[in-house]
Amino acid sequence: MENFEFYNPVKILFGKDQLKQLPGQIDKDQKVLLIYGGGSIFKNGVYNQVKSALDGYQVLEFGGIEPNPHYETAMRAVELIKAEKVDFLLAVGGGSVIDATKFIAAAALYEGEDPWHILSRRKEVKAALPFGVVLTLPATGSEMNNGAVVSRVETQEKFAFSSPNTFPQFSVLLPDAAGTLPKRQVANGIVDAFAHVLEQYLTYPANAPLQDRFAESILQTLVEVAPAVYANPADYNAMSTLMWCATMALNGLIGSGVPDDWATHLIGHELTVLHGLDHGQTLAVVFPGIFRVLKEEKKAKLLQYGARVWGIREGSEEERAEAAINRTEEFFRSLDVKTKLSEYYIPEETIEVIAQRFESRRWTAIGDRGLVTPDVVRKVLAIQYK
Amino acid sequence: MENFEFYNPVKILFGKDQLKQLPGQIDKDQKVLLIYGGGSIFKNGVYNQVKSALDGYQVLEFGGIEPNPHYETAMRAVELIKAEKVDFLLAVGGGSVIDATKFIAAAALYEGEDPWHILSRRKEVKAALPFGVVLTLPATGSEMNNGAVVSRVETQEKFAFSSPNTFPQFSVLLPDAAGTLPKRQVANGIVDAFAHVLEQYLTYPANAPLQDRFAESILQTLVEVAPAVYANPADYNAMSTLMWCATMALNGLIGSGVPDDWATHLIGHELTVLHGLDHGQTLAVVFPGIFRVLKEEKKAKLLQYGARVWGIREGSEEERAEAAINRTEEFFRSLDVKTKLSEYYIPEETIEVIAQRFESRRWTAIGDRGLVTPDVVRKVLAIQYK
Repeated sequence: MENFEFYNPVKILFGKDQLKQLPGQIDKDQKVLLIYGGGSIFKNGVYNQVKSALDGYQVLEFGGIEPNPHYETAMRAVELIKAEKVDFLLAVGGGSVIDATKFIAAAALYEGEDPWHILSRRKEVKAALPFGVVLTLPATGSEMNNGAVVSRVETQEKFAFSSPNTFPQFSVLLPDAAGTLPKRQVANGIVDAFAHVLEQYLTYPANAPLQDRFAESILQTLVEVAPAVYANPADYNAMSTLMWCATMALNGLIGSGVPDDWATHLIGHELTVLHGLDHGQTLAVVFPGIFRVLKEEKKAKLLQYGARVWGIREGSEEERAEAAINRTEEFFRSLDVKTKLSEYYIPEETIEVIAQRFESRRWTAIGDRGLVTPDVVRKVLAIQYK
Repeated sequence: MENFEFYNPVKILFGKDQLKQLPGQIDKDQKVLLIYGGGSIFKNGVYNQVKSALDGYQVLEFGGIEPNPHYETAMRAVELIKAEKVDFLLAVGGGSVIDATKFIAAAALYEGEDPWHILSRRKEVKAALPFGVVLTLPATGSEMNNGAVVSRVETQEKFAFSSPNTFPQFSVLLPDAAGTLPKRQVANGIVDAFAHVLEQYLTYPANAPLQDRFAESILQTLVEVAPAVYANPADYNAMSTLMWCATMALNGLIGSGVPDDWATHLIGHELTVLHGLDHGQTLAVVFPGIFRVLKEEKKAKLLQYGARVWGIREGSEEERAEAAINRTEEFFRSLDVKTKLSEYYIPEETIEVIAQRFESRRWTAIGDRGLVTPDVVRKVLAIQYK
């Protein structure tokens, strides 16, 4: 096992009627800014429940956070916060709203030259406004970690940041609200959670059998629950399980003491900013590609994953590794998430554009053991055209 | 899944040379009281490493915390703290030292009539001194939770308490130091961690498949690693795995959203205060007894546990449940921990003494679903004489 530090102070309030606990989490004298997205919280009733729970507070609102939240939009929220002297942010929605809120919280107190540098140059976030979360969409895990991904429309760039100062103080997890989600968002959420585990698990053996089993537990449970929750998002037990899986997939626990990868996410981000693919769609495309191109390098873990998650125990190592990759791709496709770039009508010229972006950023050896060079990026994308 | 709250702000620093990070965790102007046990930290070198890491701090010491730490001893530490105006406590050792430190931290700031009531009457702990942990013995999980168990010699009583104010601020986990432990302590630690999982898992199905798999992950990993770490505690990889298993077994995670039990611990505590059995020994006796007496009530989970942890998939339900119980008992015995009261030379009169203690405390329906009545306690102890 590698040395590690694990620290996660987010208080989770999970289940039915948990919004009633909201007043106990925020001081009465705080001026609160409610941050939300495209308006789903008006349809699922969460907006009214939150407003009613915050009765007696001074509450402002900022709506319209996009999927793959925009830097430009976040900066408008920062202006409002400074003008109105807001004390506390409350993100209500899914991962995009939470990620935007983390960046807003950091940018509002940023004293450097340009808050964009938090993302583009990974400048240190020395302080951030306190914030809480009301989660209505299981997917990104942002509700229980300190990281965020934000896109800049102007430059077509999508970057991540994290800071010890951008953990939510609390997150209220509402499986009931998630029960009203469109199936496409449920499918993307399943793929996203699955992919987060793969990024921290499918590397190479590192004498960490408990972390491996925790990772496999999340993968097995997602495979088990996916058909039920995709068929019927309102199945409370199934949605609760998906929601807790997605949170546990990226709260730092399964990544403690083991190597990680994240090349798939970095490649996927480019497909989103350049062609508007959903984040989950990009992961469903890139992961099978990464496994195909790096099958030898990742074989030990691919075989373990195949055996423990998919029950693949027959055949040669080559056959079992191949089967594990195919089962992964079939799993994504069973959720109606396409896995080939041709199915998304992406022009092949994109391959070279993305590879050259990696080169220009000097991302020449990313992923576990630095295996992913720009040439590997080219191969990964090319193999997913067929 | 049941509604739940999960909150665990303990910062974990795990691995080799992590004591170097100690100064970063405690303010330089704090007056620190080092709390330790019977002196093993002098033999394994940890005392010197801690003192050297705290060079420049004002450090006092309080040694001699017993296994199953004594209320009487803890209160002497409280006197010292008040006299010397100590700001910060640092527990160095295993679960007993940590548990004592939690109680000392709470008692030092307790404003009620008698600090004993924190234990005997579960009086609320409204404040506690801040403290950190240096862990040298994997077993109790106390390094990453807010609970403690303390015994009063005078009255032969052993009680638990917990409070949101008694989480360690940080815990440095040292597998290297644990490598010097006597085998008996390693065996007790394995049994303790295993038992902590069983208390939160072996109840009844509750639509919580991820929590079940996390629990099974710890159990499987303990079974896998036990022979190696018991044979050679200095095996760093094996000891690291045991240490992380023991921490994860009781940090609130696997118990979130599911029913729990704890009857085995409550019965076991009586065997310790009345007859001096090691905590691990009491669990190895009582768990097989509980399973035998409540086999029908716990059958669904016993079968799942048998299949997933021990690979028991053949035979009738009765045979499989029986096999799961026997494999559990054999596992404890493989670590040279005896599982029969006769093997510890405990007089049979003890059964009635313990049952009557439960009656006098009105513990008439403890454990999951309140299944454990004083009569069940009698049966559980009687069945483990044979």
